[in-house]
Amino acid sequence: MGLIVQKFGGTSVANLDRIRHVAKRVTKTYDQGNDVVVILSAMSGTTDNLIQMAHEISDAPDKREMDVLLSTGEQTTVALLAMTLISMNYPAKSLLGFQAEVLTSSKSGSARIVNIGAGRIKNLLKERNIVVIAGFQGYDSEGNITTLGRGGSDTSAVAIASALNADKCEIYTDVDGIYTTDPNICKKAKKLEKISYDEMLEMASLGAKVLQIRSVEFAKKYNVPVHVRSSFNEEEGTMVVNEDSDMERLVVSGITYNNNEARITLSKVPDQPGIASKIFSPIAKAGIMVDMIIQNTRAGGLTDLTFTVPKTDFKQALEIETKVAEEIGAENVLGDENIVKVSVIGVGMKNHSGVASKMFNVLAEENINIMMISTSEIRISCVIEEKYAELAVRVLHTAFGLDKESTTHR
Amino acid sequence: MGLIVQKFGGTSVANLDRIRHVAKRVTKTYDQGNDVVVILSAMSGTTDNLIQMAHEISDAPDKREMDVLLSTGEQTTVALLAMTLISMNYPAKSLLGFQAEVLTSSKSGSARIVNIGAGRIKNLLKERNIVVIAGFQGYDSEGNITTLGRGGSDTSAVAIASALNADKCEIYTDVDGIYTTDPNICKKAKKLEKISYDEMLEMASLGAKVLQIRSVEFAKKYNVPVHVRSSFNEEEGTMVVNEDSDMERLVVSGITYNNNEARITLSKVPDQPGIASKIFSPIAKAGIMVDMIIQNTRAGGLTDLTFTVPKTDFKQALEIETKVAEEIGAENVLGDENIVKVSVIGVGMKNHSGVASKMFNVLAEENINIMMISTSEIRISCVIEEKYAELAVRVLHTAFGLDKESTTHR
Repeated sequence: MGLIVQKFGGTSVANLDRIRHVAKRVTKTYDQGNDVVVILSAMSGTTDNLIQMAHEISDAPDKREMDVLLSTGEQTTVALLAMTLISMNYPAKSLLGFQAEVLTSSKSGSARIVNIGAGRIKNLLKERNIVVIAGFQGYDSEGNITTLGRGGSDTSAVAIASALNADKCEIYTDVDGIYTTDPNICKKAKKLEKISYDEMLEMASLGAKVLQIRSVEFAKKYNVPVHVRSSFNEEEGTMVVNEDSDMERLVVSGITYNNNEARITLSKVPDQPGIASKIFSPIAKAGIMVDMIIQNTRAGGLTDLTFTVPKTDFKQALEIETKVAEEIGAENVLGDENIVKVSVIGVGMKNHSGVASKMFNVLAEENINIMMISTSEIRISCVIEEKYAELAVRVLHTAFGLDKESTTHR
Repeated sequence: MGLIVQKFGGTSVANLDRIRHVAKRVTKTYDQGNDVVVILSAMSGTTDNLIQMAHEISDAPDKREMDVLLSTGEQTTVALLAMTLISMNYPAKSLLGFQAEVLTSSKSGSARIVNIGAGRIKNLLKERNIVVIAGFQGYDSEGNITTLGRGGSDTSAVAIASALNADKCEIYTDVDGIYTTDPNICKKAKKLEKISYDEMLEMASLGAKVLQIRSVEFAKKYNVPVHVRSSFNEEEGTMVVNEDSDMERLVVSGITYNNNEARITLSKVPDQPGIASKIFSPIAKAGIMVDMIIQNTRAGGLTDLTFTVPKTDFKQALEIETKVAEEIGAENVLGDENIVKVSVIGVGMKNHSGVASKMFNVLAEENINIMMISTSEIRISCVIEEKYAELAVRVLHTAFGLDKESTTHR
C-alpha cells in the first residue's frame, strides 16, 4: 500500500472504451488500498487536430492562445475518466493544471515546471478520492494557462510524483517497456528490466520515443523511480532508476539509431583563429541546433569541417554555409542527407575499456564506413550511410550480447 | 467612444469562417476607438456532442465533471477568436471564467454568478487589448469550474457588462431582434425597437428563445441596456431597457405562445382544508414545475382542480395524480396534451383597462374556447386548444395593432 502515480498517454485514452479500460486499471490499484493519482494526456489525434485548426487561422498562431486551445485536450479526458470512475461508484475528482497548482515558467508552448503546490491533491487523497490530473498543462505566475510541450504529460507525472513523494510513478504507454533497441528493425531486441536515468536520457535523445527527455531529467533530479509499462497488458515493464552497482555488470544496455540528421562539410577552409565562429554563428542565429562537429586538419593551413543538423533545417543550413564558404574562402560545401547515427549506450562503459574499438571492429567487419564519431561518458555514436542503419543495429546488438536469450541459445 | 461588451452565440462562432466574420465585427467597433470585451459561446453543436459523450458513460454523469467537460467548448472558441484577432494584428487576450474572476455559487450545471472581480479585464483594456472571455463558465469559492446552464453566456455578458460599467451590451444572435410575435407563424410580426426588461422576461419565459431569462433578470437588476441584434447583418436590433414613459404608449408589445405544457384536471374533489397540499406536494417532490393552477367550486362541497405541467413531465405527473385522486376520493383525473398557452404582453396594460376583455372577445369571435386564464401585471395568458395556436396569435396580433405598417396600410 502506498501512493501511486499512474500516467496514461493519448492512445490509452483514445476513446470511451479505452477510458473504461484505464478506469479498471486505476480502480484495481485503488482497491489494493493504494492512494492513486492519475495523469492523463489528450486523446491521441486531438492535439494534432487542434494544431491544424490553429494553422488554418495563421501560419504562426499566437502561442499564448495556442496553449489555451491545446489545454482543452486533457481537460476533456480528465473529465471523462473522472465521470467513468464515479459511474463505477468510486470517488474521483478531476483537476486541471492550475487547480493542481502546477506553476510553470511563462514560456508558452514549452513552459517549465517551477513548483507544484500539492496541498489540494493531498486533501483530496485524504478523503480517499482518486485524483485525475490533466497532464501537459500548468499556469504561470500571472494566471495564464501554459503547456509543457510535446510529451509534457510524462513530465507532469514525474513532477507530481516527486511533489507528492509518491512511492511509484507508472507511465502507461503503447509499448511494454524500454527495449535494447528498436524491435521493429531487430527481432532479437529484448525488454530491459531496469535502465538508469542517464542511459534513458541518451536513449531518449537519440530516438527512442517512449519517455519525454525532460521527464527523465526531472526523475533523475528528484530521484523518482519511473515504471514504464504497457496499458494493454499486465506485464511488468522497465524500471527507470538511479544507477546501481547491479547495473554496471552490463557494459552496454542499448543500441539506438537516429536518421533525423543531415551532414554538411566545408572543405579546404583556411585555418585561422575565429573561423569556427564565422561558420557557426549564422547557423545559431537562424535557430538551428548543431549536433556533432568534427574538424580535420589538412596540410597547408587548410582544414575540413563537418557537422550535423536536423534534416528539417538542412536546406536552410546549406544555403547559409554556401554564403559563409564564399566569405571565408573555403573551397567547397557538401551536403548529405543519407546518413544515420548509430549509438551504443551503457553506464557500464565507465568501467570498461574497449567498447569503442569493439564497435568500430564490428562495423568494419560488415564493410560499413564510419563518417563521424562522437562520445560521451556512457555513449559512443557513429555516423554511417543510412542504408546500413538496420544492419549496423543488428550486428552491434548481437556483438554486445543483447540478443534475447531464447534466440541466443538456439 | 466607450466600453462595449459584445456577445456572440454558438451559430456565430460555428466554424473558422464565422469566427473570422466575428473578428471583423469586433475590430470595426475597436477601430472606432471603443474598448471592446467579447463574450463567446461554444461552437453550435459542440455542447450537445459533449453531453452525448458523457451520457455514453452514464445516464447521470457527475455534474462537477460535466462542467469540466462542457467548459472546453468556450475555451476553444475564445482561443480561436483571440488567435484570429492577433493574426489580424490586433492585440487580443482570451480569458476563461476563472481568469476573468467570474465567481459563482457551487451548483454544478446551473451555478449563479456571485461576483465578478473585473481587475484583470480592466488592466487588459487599459493596454488597449481586445479581451475575449469564455461565457457560460465561472469558478466557485473552492476553485472548481462551474457552468451557468443553457444560454448562460447571455448572463455572462450582461454580468460582465455590469461589473465593467459598460456603455453597451450587445447580444449578437441568429435573429435580428425581438419581434412582436413569432415571424414563423405570423408574417405580419414586426421587430421591436425597444422592449422593457419586464416585457422581455414575460416573452422569454413564454417561449421566445432569444435571451436567457436570467440574463434579463440580471440586466434589469443592474440596469444594463442590452442590444439584441443579428451577427449576420448590420441592422439595428432591439434594445432591452428600463421601462420609460415613451414605451407606455404601446398597450401591448407582443404576443407569445407556448405549446410545451400539458393540462391535468382532478374533478369532483371533496373540498376540505389541506386538499391542495395533498395534490401538489407529491408533484413538487418529483421535481415537476407546476405553472397555472385553477380551482372551480362546484355545488355539494366538491371542487374541480386544473393545472399545467411541462409536457416532458406529463406522464409522470398523471401517474402521481391518479394515485392522489384515489387517496382523496376525487372522481376523475383527466389529462390533455393538446393545449397551447397564448399570451398578450405589454407594460402599457398597467395604465389601460380593457385589454383582457378585448383578448377574450377576439378569441370568441373566432369561436376559440378559453380553457384557463392567468394574468400578471403586464400579461394575460389563455390556454386554448393547440390547433388554434397560429390563428389565435394572428388575430390577436392584428387586434392589438401590432401588424407591420406596410401590411396595415395596404
